[in-house]
Amino acid sequence: MLIHFEDIETEVLPGFRGGEGQYIRKCFSDENCKIMEGKLEPGSSIGMHTHTEDYEVIYVITGNGTIVNEDSREVIKTGSVSYCAPGKTHTVINDGNDDLIFFAVFPKTAK
Amino acid sequence: MLIHFEDIETEVLPGFRGGEGQYIRKCFSDENCKIMEGKLEPGSSIGMHTHTEDYEVIYVITGNGTIVNEDSREVIKTGSVSYCAPGKTHTVINDGNDDLIFFAVFPKTAK
Repeated sequence: MLIHFEDIETEVLPGFRGGEGQYIRKCFSDENCKIMEGKLEPGSSIGMHTHTEDYEVIYVITGNGTIVNEDSREVIKTGSVSYCAPGKTHTVINDGNDDLIFFAVFPKTAK
Repeated sequence: MLIHFEDIETEVLPGFRGGEGQYIRKCFSDENCKIMEGKLEPGSSIGMHTHTEDYEVIYVITGNGTIVNEDSREVIKTGSVSYCAPGKTHTVINDGNDDLIFFAVFPKTAK
């Protein structure tokens, strides 16, 4: 089925997970996963957090930024794909000059 | 971690799952999921198949096409998101005039 993000309410989340600025997202959710379109304006970030009950795969639609993991810093740009495996920790930072817009899938891990 | 598709071998799969033409992909895989960049040239398709041990979330990077599900036909274009839930059946068809390029995540379902 198509996920029609244009019909999903936009959430504006200030200081998301302790980050700077605000995280703007549209989120589909069911028993298997969450599917999201996310936006961070320049200077905004998602704070460092650990994926305890799911994992995350990000595809960068447009913009530039940095993903900090436990053991590395990744420069991301249009077309970058970042994978935060179950139990891993990361943050997403828009340290660029344009909006950072990304598509993300959060599959739930088996209980 | 970043998935560097440019370092992953390109697979060219004729008649993939009974489809027309060939399916061209780069695929990362681990114990949790597959993460893929796929390309269908005009006239190519992935044949109808059922997701028995995983599910699939597609983000269309560029191009136009059609996804046929058990009970619907979906027109897809740049930015479209299609979700094939566990146990569901679908096909992906490039019936457009340009390459259809998409990003897809295939989370494994719990055994």
